[in-house]
Amino acid sequence: MTSPIRGFPASEFRGRTRAAQNLMVKHGLSALLLTTEPEIRYYTGFLTRFWESPTRPWFVIVPVSGDPIAVIPSIGAHLMGQSWITDIRTWAAPDYTDDGIGLLLEALHEVTPKAGQIGIADQMESHVHMPLADLRRLETGLSPRRLVSDAAITRQMRLVKSEAEIEKIRHAAAIATRAFDRVPQGIGAGMPLSHVFRRFQMLCLEEGADWVPYLAGAADHSGYADVISPATDAPLAQGDVLMLDTGLVWDGYFCDFDRNFSVGPPTETVKTGHSRLVEATQTAAEMARPGATIADLFHAMNVVVNPSGTIMEAGRLGHGLGMQLTEWPSIIPQDHTVLMAGMVLTLEPSVDVGAGKILVHEENIVIRDSGAEFLSHPQSPDIRVI
Amino acid sequence: MTSPIRGFPASEFRGRTRAAQNLMVKHGLSALLLTTEPEIRYYTGFLTRFWESPTRPWFVIVPVSGDPIAVIPSIGAHLMGQSWITDIRTWAAPDYTDDGIGLLLEALHEVTPKAGQIGIADQMESHVHMPLADLRRLETGLSPRRLVSDAAITRQMRLVKSEAEIEKIRHAAAIATRAFDRVPQGIGAGMPLSHVFRRFQMLCLEEGADWVPYLAGAADHSGYADVISPATDAPLAQGDVLMLDTGLVWDGYFCDFDRNFSVGPPTETVKTGHSRLVEATQTAAEMARPGATIADLFHAMNVVVNPSGTIMEAGRLGHGLGMQLTEWPSIIPQDHTVLMAGMVLTLEPSVDVGAGKILVHEENIVIRDSGAEFLSHPQSPDIRVI
Repeated sequence: MTSPIRGFPASEFRGRTRAAQNLMVKHGLSALLLTTEPEIRYYTGFLTRFWESPTRPWFVIVPVSGDPIAVIPSIGAHLMGQSWITDIRTWAAPDYTDDGIGLLLEALHEVTPKAGQIGIADQMESHVHMPLADLRRLETGLSPRRLVSDAAITRQMRLVKSEAEIEKIRHAAAIATRAFDRVPQGIGAGMPLSHVFRRFQMLCLEEGADWVPYLAGAADHSGYADVISPATDAPLAQGDVLMLDTGLVWDGYFCDFDRNFSVGPPTETVKTGHSRLVEATQTAAEMARPGATIADLFHAMNVVVNPSGTIMEAGRLGHGLGMQLTEWPSIIPQDHTVLMAGMVLTLEPSVDVGAGKILVHEENIVIRDSGAEFLSHPQSPDIRVI
Repeated sequence: MTSPIRGFPASEFRGRTRAAQNLMVKHGLSALLLTTEPEIRYYTGFLTRFWESPTRPWFVIVPVSGDPIAVIPSIGAHLMGQSWITDIRTWAAPDYTDDGIGLLLEALHEVTPKAGQIGIADQMESHVHMPLADLRRLETGLSPRRLVSDAAITRQMRLVKSEAEIEKIRHAAAIATRAFDRVPQGIGAGMPLSHVFRRFQMLCLEEGADWVPYLAGAADHSGYADVISPATDAPLAQGDVLMLDTGLVWDGYFCDFDRNFSVGPPTETVKTGHSRLVEATQTAAEMARPGATIADLFHAMNVVVNPSGTIMEAGRLGHGLGMQLTEWPSIIPQDHTVLMAGMVLTLEPSVDVGAGKILVHEENIVIRDSGAEFLSHPQSPDIRVI
């Protein structure tokens, strides 16, 4: 299968920058200060696994007019130089006396007025990616300028994906679909779960994943109690339900879905639970179109998996997806976001199968004008058997 | 080969907690507030890849006396319940009106006096892992208690590894050593670099890695300009030097080292550059014993790779290693940390080979009373050839 083109044309980054600048005017912001991987990549295209190292901070300023300014460790200058960004200022990080804050202040003083307000992401799914002592130095040094909320400008823009972004997520999902289809080859009863996890990650890579940042799962008799644990060395046993949930990446974009496998013939409870989960995702997908709300999707799924109408504590039944494994919004009853074409979501219902066990199923969709398009190949109601 | 035992005995977490509490008394702190993955895992053993999801915050309080308190999303209760922590307080995250801050405040009010100072990591390699708006709500709600620097207590403790920790890092390094030895099988001229990266990650998994959070590298004629870029689809060519630098994980602990491969016979410049890099790591390893300083290691390596005595801008020549790919300290001239037995370090010199190209070499060592012990199998001066 052919891969999409890597990267984006510079016009996509320019468009994002201009759109953010329009919103900045509306919210009275002189600049945005970006500190996290997805935010910086969203405006610049700067893609590297080097973020795994927590040592050096990275900063990008999006002024209310003009192009973004990168204020970054010199080790990143060569890679940033290949992006559309031309104003790249570097320091020899790590610097124990001033790890970039002086250089950042200089740039912010240059592009914002004294009465300026500088927006920084402060909401769910965000954090400030620099040491707290440096954040405090920055705030002091900016005065009388103020560091304020970015009014969720970047989050709002990232909510609706471009066709180029959707193509990358679709490609990632197709890779995972093929990897899941190959699970029964070489994975079976007796294999320690830690080997199953290794083998599945290798399948993802063989099928074309760039890397596999997320794999969780579980295997236990007729269901599982936990969906976030790492693998133990306990062997798969007849009667187990094995669940594998992967967030693999292609060109910086995630898919995020799972599949369940019965080791040997499934019990009636497992069969019914699984088909109910698939029914829930199908029901939600059918109603997922512009104008419906996130809460609508929640209730559509919840009534299928919890016919009594109770709401399980563990939380949401899906979320946004894209440059991160989980993005805004969360599919919870309190979220009244109206669906728009281009939003990419996971539908992730869980069902109680008794004895403290659950089953979880997940699909990935993109909202189109005419309704939902599946990015994952939708699972049939019958649980897979290995 | 046999694997070490996974996890740690509860006594190790208790010992860390008591040691931190002694330091808290010394620094006048009533509690530590932990928000990041390595900090929380260091005191609790809570190991999950679920941190890849940025949505839910996680909090652990280490009071100046008594056991730690986990204040976490209910989705993590089952896994945290398997740790030595017994006081686990949960909420149904994500909660759009109060995502755990109320519950966290309640717990902090309970275990700290009104005049209390609560320490939070604020230095290099750390950040506050919660939305900025929530941090501000927390500070307001804590008043008159104050959120202050944790005086680097956790960083200082993590600097010296226990034997159980060293064993996990050694195991991770042995896995990478075997994976590097297999590179010449099936990787060669004509293969796109993106395939090389995939294939190498598969080798790491085959050899026993739990997952491969970090792989960077490069391939270019007689050296490379950049060591943090993701792979392109450009094919390996005769005369290229291929560098692969991996941080793979076993039971939550990283190794971090690279190997260089000449595609076809190396040029004299490449041969000399490579042997000089190996000489630099050997020289540093020979002097790395308790009492020497980090700056000593820097200068010992720098004089070998830069006989003129200049210091390259791109920065450090190694760093700490353990639960994170890069940890405190940085091997730079300004770091005067005195080496202690149990410190795990990478030695990572780079050498300028002209035309804007460099070569980088890296080894992992642990400081023992008698000197350095290699955790990576040390590379010979001759560059590997494929």
